Amino acid sequence: MLLEETLEKIRPLDHSADAAIQKRLDSLTKPPGSLGRLEELARRVSLIQEEIPPRLGSKLLYVFASDHGITQEGVSAYPKEVTAQMTYNFLQGGAAINVLARHHGVEVEVVDVGVDHDFPPLDGLRSCKIKRGTNNFARGAAMTRAEARQSLETGIRLAEESAARKIFLLGAGAMGIGNTSSAAAILCALTEVSVRDATGRGTGIDRAVWERKLAAVETGLRLNQPAPNDPVEVLAKVGGFEIGAIAGLILGAAAFRIPMVVDGYICSSAALLAYRLSAHVRDILFAAHLSAEHGHRVMLDELRLNPLLSLHMRLGEGTGACIAMGLIEAAVKIMREMATFDSAGVAGKNS
Amino acid sequence: MLLEETLEKIRPLDHSADAAIQKRLDSLTKPPGSLGRLEELARRVSLIQEEIPPRLGSKLLYVFASDHGITQEGVSAYPKEVTAQMTYNFLQGGAAINVLARHHGVEVEVVDVGVDHDFPPLDGLRSCKIKRGTNNFARGAAMTRAEARQSLETGIRLAEESAARKIFLLGAGAMGIGNTSSAAAILCALTEVSVRDATGRGTGIDRAVWERKLAAVETGLRLNQPAPNDPVEVLAKVGGFEIGAIAGLILGAAAFRIPMVVDGYICSSAALLAYRLSAHVRDILFAAHLSAEHGHRVMLDELRLNPLLSLHMRLGEGTGACIAMGLIEAAVKIMREMATFDSAGVAGKNS
Repeated sequence: MLLEETLEKIRPLDHSADAAIQKRLDSLTKPPGSLGRLEELARRVSLIQEEIPPRLGSKLLYVFASDHGITQEGVSAYPKEVTAQMTYNFLQGGAAINVLARHHGVEVEVVDVGVDHDFPPLDGLRSCKIKRGTNNFARGAAMTRAEARQSLETGIRLAEESAARKIFLLGAGAMGIGNTSSAAAILCALTEVSVRDATGRGTGIDRAVWERKLAAVETGLRLNQPAPNDPVEVLAKVGGFEIGAIAGLILGAAAFRIPMVVDGYICSSAALLAYRLSAHVRDILFAAHLSAEHGHRVMLDELRLNPLLSLHMRLGEGTGACIAMGLIEAAVKIMREMATFDSAGVAGKNS
Repeated sequence: MLLEETLEKIRPLDHSADAAIQKRLDSLTKPPGSLGRLEELARRVSLIQEEIPPRLGSKLLYVFASDHGITQEGVSAYPKEVTAQMTYNFLQGGAAINVLARHHGVEVEVVDVGVDHDFPPLDGLRSCKIKRGTNNFARGAAMTRAEARQSLETGIRLAEESAARKIFLLGAGAMGIGNTSSAAAILCALTEVSVRDATGRGTGIDRAVWERKLAAVETGLRLNQPAPNDPVEVLAKVGGFEIGAIAGLILGAAAFRIPMVVDGYICSSAALLAYRLSAHVRDILFAAHLSAEHGHRVMLDELRLNPLLSLHMRLGEGTGACIAMGLIEAAVKIMREMATFDSAGVAGKNS
């Protein structure tokens, strides 16, 4: 009952410290509000941690890798073997997420939740494999309800660990050929959004493949009929193991009050699942960026999250999250390290 | 004749390496184009440096401090003494720019080009003082043409130094109570933009002070009649010493091919002056962010620069530039450090 226990723990933010936080921000040597969204970030981290100023610490990003049966429908630009190949690339430090994580001082942990490949024991690879890939959701359920719960609980356990390590900031990313089909289906299953409005070009498919992808998502939704008010069922019917794990990580982060950054399209579909399981997860979530993937804007609107960046990125892996994690850390440093008008002997506003 | 010599040196980018740069980017383990604007940044740094991949190195940001006679018109929210007080704050490391610079590994050099205060010799403060503040441009010219040239040449010399040090990336920021009035006047003098569309609330003035500010800028423009096709005259009539120095730094950066980041409203007015002196400066310029200062969007449109960030910041000091410098460095690392499809054994796109 880890899922239910976790949902039980999630509480809304206590806003009684709002005035004290604002007072601290306004004591710093800058015109009030002039750091814009950096101030908003510092304010919210302070509320989440219930500390003024917020504390700093390690930044940890999980990259969840998993395969998708829906690739059998020919919906992707890359062969499904790329999921395993990119997992090796993550471990060797050659992927975009590795470069950005080194740049921003973010620790990366790679988690196999369902890659269709048997990895030998490898340094830096965490095995939480549920199964070698989901089933093709255009032909039946992607996974069982038990597997859906298992993927959620995998994420929750990682959040528990992060809480024990007093991680300052969590991020997540995904790698899984076929996963934008799954994310689009989740968006459609949970909302009124049409398949055409939800489904994008992923890693860069041409029009013919895109039409196949639309058909596959439509077929999957019609066949599986996931109940919109049952997020676990939606995950089971049309989801992916990495999406479930990220949703679980978000629930755990909310339960343990760890600020968490969602990356792009895949992560946001996981965030939407988590949000439908507990609306207060929004309090600890930061939307890193607006992805160039068609449908991401709609997803963020459903989540009522305002992305920090808009750099036309659509890579996944947590690349957008990583950049945003650096920004959130900078915002906290602003609140911790800036001089006050008093301490620096700077005159305040004309009265 | 340093100004003329520098203008003479500025050349447009040579685009003959475009295909080779793109080939390198597309060999990296990610879908082509999926890193969006990060790829655009890497591409342009590569063109500026004429190196594939671009080299890395030190990031240096100059904060130029100077006072403005226009403060006599009561156009600011803060007393003019704050310029000198904030200069001390920069030297002590307590300002927002110091925090962000430490976070992003950016070296900060504080340059006094016209603060109305006699500083003792201080570690980290560079004295290039032209005069203790400009004249009130609502009553006459802000400075002489010789002083305008001196401010430009101050910036050019700093760019020369940076080139000798092989600085990877330059940034600039400004501190000067009253300087948004000057920047607004420059924008109006060089373009068809109206005073009302150009002039914002600066550090946070109320409506009454804003009306005074509009009147002061209008009076200054009417009285001085700066010739729109003579940027040095515009600088002399309604500019500021820090704005001239930043414009000079941009010209120098263009001459010596150093990628340079412009911050917000003040820096962009300097960029507009530089752009009118030599259109090719745009090739080496990166617009850090869209400031919350009213009129900044119009200014960036005049420059035809697309800002990287939009965080509702309006502090100045180079704070936006600093964040963008971190992003540009990350983009270069992407091009330098990512594995290729071949080296990582990752399959390419389905044919």
